[in-house]
Amino acid sequence: MKLATIRRPDERTRAVRIDGDTVLDLGVSDLGALLAEPGWRERAAGGDPLAVRPEQLSFAPVVPRPGKIVCVGLNYRQHITEMGREIPQFPTLFAKYPEALIGADDPLVLPAESDAVDWEAELAVVVGARVRHADEAAAAEAIAGFSVLNDVTTRDWQYRSPQWLQGKTFEATTPFGPFLVTPDELEGGVRPRLELLGQVDGETVQKADTADLVFDPVALVAYVSRILTLQPGDVIATGTPGGVGHARTPARYLADGDVLTTEISGLGRSRVEVRGRA
Amino acid sequence: MKLATIRRPDERTRAVRIDGDTVLDLGVSDLGALLAEPGWRERAAGGDPLAVRPEQLSFAPVVPRPGKIVCVGLNYRQHITEMGREIPQFPTLFAKYPEALIGADDPLVLPAESDAVDWEAELAVVVGARVRHADEAAAAEAIAGFSVLNDVTTRDWQYRSPQWLQGKTFEATTPFGPFLVTPDELEGGVRPRLELLGQVDGETVQKADTADLVFDPVALVAYVSRILTLQPGDVIATGTPGGVGHARTPARYLADGDVLTTEISGLGRSRVEVRGRA
Repeated sequence: MKLATIRRPDERTRAVRIDGDTVLDLGVSDLGALLAEPGWRERAAGGDPLAVRPEQLSFAPVVPRPGKIVCVGLNYRQHITEMGREIPQFPTLFAKYPEALIGADDPLVLPAESDAVDWEAELAVVVGARVRHADEAAAAEAIAGFSVLNDVTTRDWQYRSPQWLQGKTFEATTPFGPFLVTPDELEGGVRPRLELLGQVDGETVQKADTADLVFDPVALVAYVSRILTLQPGDVIATGTPGGVGHARTPARYLADGDVLTTEISGLGRSRVEVRGRA
Repeated sequence: MKLATIRRPDERTRAVRIDGDTVLDLGVSDLGALLAEPGWRERAAGGDPLAVRPEQLSFAPVVPRPGKIVCVGLNYRQHITEMGREIPQFPTLFAKYPEALIGADDPLVLPAESDAVDWEAELAVVVGARVRHADEAAAAEAIAGFSVLNDVTTRDWQYRSPQWLQGKTFEATTPFGPFLVTPDELEGGVRPRLELLGQVDGETVQKADTADLVFDPVALVAYVSRILTLQPGDVIATGTPGGVGHARTPARYLADGDVLTTEISGLGRSRVEVRGRA
């Protein structure tokens, strides 16, 4: 199933399923509310057709207000190896607050506070069940599906202190969506083998296979659930491969007029126009 | 005003005001719901007396489910100086998820996953207004009040990766409360000059004056509001002074049977019994 949270003309949101050319209203305000229902898969399989076509949709963040957004640091094997680092024993985890999220195609207004806004194309895991101390089977079962996220980062703020949080959570800077796609539709299922592609103004800057993750989605859900309870609608952003602007010589950051696209095969594409700071 | 979120006999919570020996019901489920009302100060000043005495109360976390908990790293001037470090130019910020919170006097059950559970007594700022890009006056006005928090940390998990999050957010390990006290009742007001005291089994392990903070509550609210919108009920934990167990020789961690108390003059005392791992 391909699900989304869309904005209606009155700006209120609605959870929908997209089935070919048909958009079906699922009777709840957003996918966070949908996933909170124990029988969400049955509800998501139904719905009432809307008089709108998929290409006309305006997307809110897939889950507009996750209870938790857990982000993972360096997690692509090839990128770690090419930097000469050891494969880590444990994932690096940090947080992002929900205020950072925007819809997949919303404009990205550069924060006036930063001179170094950078991209990080990522595969996002969306949790679909309450889970704690999950074994592998429970972790797999707790994955509602996957989406596209760009962990846009203000590098100057990220490195103001040893902890990255303040560079990771600027208001309205993280595109999240357009779709939540259930694992049954994806090659590799809950350990998807998909092509991740980040582009700036049409130039491919990041490219990876999501099968290259050191800690795959199932492992991450299991790991985080040892620390605390994962709840429906919680999000794990699985980390970015090489190719960020900060690592280029000279460094390249997002500027007014840039178009940042983040695409994962089977999960769709986010396309944001960058505004502010010429 | 001295406010709290209490647990009723049916386990549901209720926001109350404590006025001497009188406990007044404020008509909402918890202080998070109270603070979300624009006119919360007027509502908090009223209330209906309950047939219960203050010493009989069972405390939930002061704000049971903050939208955001922002924690501050090294922030006590004396502690930074005695460690031979420079006073930082910017605060170090990291996150904690709401699942970590417990009431001020709840038992602290040691997570089976950790061998190194440590204390960090802290002054907590509770936000009482929606605020973004706050100047000093707006930041001061946005402070609803102060509370006691112990940023209990699993040191082994904290240092598994460069980012501390996973050691800071174990489920049900962070005592928060008992009271939210408004600035007008405190020496120093929104920049309180209060004695912070952490004790383990009656031994004083941490002691500081909250006036020694490098980034005071007003500065922290203003700083965080440059990054994103602070909302009513959000919490900023302002950092801990010296005296944590990890820094002792030999290191000392919390063990079954320990009693951890965290007290701030004027804000009351949290007293948790530690259980598990002998």
